[in-house]
Amino acid sequence: MKGFKSVFGGRDVLITGGAGFIGSNLAHELVGLGASVEVLDNLTPVQGGNVHNLDGIMDKIRLGIADIRDADVAAKAVEGKDFIFNMASLTRHVGSVIDPMSDLDVNCRGSLTLLEACRNHNPSVKVVYAGSRSQYGKIEYNPVDEKHPMNSADPNGVSKAAAEKYHILFYRMYGIRTTSLRLTNTYGPRQQMKDPDLGFVNWFIRLAMDGGVIKIFDGGQTKRDLNYVSDVVTALLMAASDERSNGEAFNVGSGVPVSILDLTKMIIKKVGSGSFEMVPYPKERKNIEIGDYFADIGKVKRMLGWSPATPIDEGLEKTIDFYRKNYW
Amino acid sequence: MKGFKSVFGGRDVLITGGAGFIGSNLAHELVGLGASVEVLDNLTPVQGGNVHNLDGIMDKIRLGIADIRDADVAAKAVEGKDFIFNMASLTRHVGSVIDPMSDLDVNCRGSLTLLEACRNHNPSVKVVYAGSRSQYGKIEYNPVDEKHPMNSADPNGVSKAAAEKYHILFYRMYGIRTTSLRLTNTYGPRQQMKDPDLGFVNWFIRLAMDGGVIKIFDGGQTKRDLNYVSDVVTALLMAASDERSNGEAFNVGSGVPVSILDLTKMIIKKVGSGSFEMVPYPKERKNIEIGDYFADIGKVKRMLGWSPATPIDEGLEKTIDFYRKNYW
Repeated sequence: MKGFKSVFGGRDVLITGGAGFIGSNLAHELVGLGASVEVLDNLTPVQGGNVHNLDGIMDKIRLGIADIRDADVAAKAVEGKDFIFNMASLTRHVGSVIDPMSDLDVNCRGSLTLLEACRNHNPSVKVVYAGSRSQYGKIEYNPVDEKHPMNSADPNGVSKAAAEKYHILFYRMYGIRTTSLRLTNTYGPRQQMKDPDLGFVNWFIRLAMDGGVIKIFDGGQTKRDLNYVSDVVTALLMAASDERSNGEAFNVGSGVPVSILDLTKMIIKKVGSGSFEMVPYPKERKNIEIGDYFADIGKVKRMLGWSPATPIDEGLEKTIDFYRKNYW
Repeated sequence: MKGFKSVFGGRDVLITGGAGFIGSNLAHELVGLGASVEVLDNLTPVQGGNVHNLDGIMDKIRLGIADIRDADVAAKAVEGKDFIFNMASLTRHVGSVIDPMSDLDVNCRGSLTLLEACRNHNPSVKVVYAGSRSQYGKIEYNPVDEKHPMNSADPNGVSKAAAEKYHILFYRMYGIRTTSLRLTNTYGPRQQMKDPDLGFVNWFIRLAMDGGVIKIFDGGQTKRDLNYVSDVVTALLMAASDERSNGEAFNVGSGVPVSILDLTKMIIKKVGSGSFEMVPYPKERKNIEIGDYFADIGKVKRMLGWSPATPIDEGLEKTIDFYRKNYW
C-alpha cells in the first residue's frame, strides 16, 4: 500500500514488544513488505507477548527474548537499524495502580534506555513510539485533540506521557527522528483475550465465545473509540515513512464513539452466543475511570494522510474469525 | 506569620532534601515555629545538599543521611508525620542531559517510593511537592499560567512533570492530600554557589565576590522570574496548611521578569566587584533554552492568598550579606 514496499523492502527494522498484540501484527506486515525484521520482547507474563503471535513468520525474523532496559541489549538491538518501532510497554491500567513501580520502570526507563542507545549508536534511525490515549487521563472535552491536557488518571497515564516526552525531546535535543502515535483502544487478531486489563474488546469476544456473561458497568453508556489493528499498523508505517512526523505526536483512533452497551450487543450477535448483565462499577476501576473518550484525528489525516479504513462491523468479524481458528 | 505557629507548632514534619537549598531554609523556619522536624537527605554530590545549611538547628532536628528511593527508609520516614515537604530532587538542566537515567530515577522513582509509603503507612498525611517551572519547557506565551502545555525542554522537565502528576494522582486515587508548587528560579541564602547548573543567581554573586568575570549569553536579554527563598518557604507553609491546595498545582514566582543583563549589573553594583562579558550561547545550553519565562501567579494569590514580599533589590542584598558571612 502506498509504496510501503519501496520504503521498507530490504530495510532493517527493530520492533520492541514485537511478540505483543500490535507489535506482532506490525511484524507480519513488515515481513510481507520484504523488511528484515528483528523482534525484541521480554515476554513478561503481565503483558500480551506470545510467541504464537509470530506463527507463520518465525523463520523470516530474528527473535530476541530480552529486555530493552538492559543497556547492552539496547545497544546491540538499535545498531544498523533503519527503523525502530518502540512498542514494548506495560499497558495495564488497574495493573499500574497495583504496581506503579514496574509501570514506571518499563515504560520510562525502558524507553530512555532505547533512546540513549540510539543517541550513542545510531542517531540517524527513525523511531516510532506507541503512545496511548491514557496519557490524557480524565477527559475534559470530546473529541479529544492533541492539545487536550494530560490529566493522567492512573500511573500508566503518567509513565506513557513521560515516555512520549522523552521521544520528542530526543528529536529536539539531538535531531533523532522520533514520533508518537497516541493509540486509542485497539482491537483485533493477536490481542490476548484472557485478561480484561489488557483490552476489553477481545475479552468480551472471548466471554461470548465461551457462552459466558459479559459484565457491563453502570449501564454501559460509557463511550470509547475503537480502532482495528491493521489500521493502526498502517498508521505506524505511514508515520515511519514520513519526515513530517518528526518530533510530532498524533492521535490515532477511529474518531467514532461507540457505547460499551452497543459494542457488547454487536459482539454477542456476531459471535452467536454469550449474554450480558449490568453490574455496579468496581471501586478499583471507578477511581481511574476517565469518562467518555473519542479522538479528534484531524492532525494525522491532515499531516500524514492516514484515515481508519475498517468499520467496527468488519473489524469485529475479522477478529472473531481469527479467534475461531486460533483459540489459545 | 498568619497563625503558622498554631498549625506547625509541636507537629511532626518530614523534609526530604532538607539539607538542600530550599529544604534547609524551610527547616530553619519550621524549627522556629516549634515543629518537630526530621530532615532526610542523601547528600548526593551532584546536588546542593550540605550539612552546614543546618548550622544553628542541628541540635533541634533529626537528620537522616539516607535515600528516599529506599522503600524501608521511606516507610520509616513517613510514619507518624503530619506534614511532608518533598524537596528531594535532581534539579540540574545540563546535568539531566548528561545523565537522564539518574534524573528519572531520583525524581520519579523517588517520589513514587515516598507516595507509596504514604499510601501504605500514613494516608492522612499532607504532602507538599516542590515542582518546577522546568515542567513547562519551551515557553509559548508569557506570563505562564498553570494551563501552559508541558513542552519539556530537557529530561529534568520530563521527570519533574511526571513526579508532580504522581502526587496529584495519589490525591485523586486515594485521597492523600497532595499539592505541588511549581517554583521559578529561587535564590537566596543556603543555595550552593559553586555550580551554575544549580542556580545562576548565586553563581553570579559568587563570581562577583571573587572579582571574576560573569559570562552572559547572547546579550543577556533573556528574562527570568526570580523569587527570594523566604517567600518560597512562606508559600510552602501556606500550601501545607490550606485544604484548598489539595490535588492542585500552583505557580510560585515573583511574576516580575528581569533580564539576565539587568540582574548582572545589579549584582556587580551591590557586591562592589566583578565584571561581565558577552559570549555566544554554548551549544549544550542553547539546545535546551526555553526562552523568556515569567509566571502568572494569579492562582496561588487567589486560592491560597500568597504573594511575593521581597523585591529583587532586598533579596539580593540579604543574599550577598549571608555569603559575606558564610563563604563556603
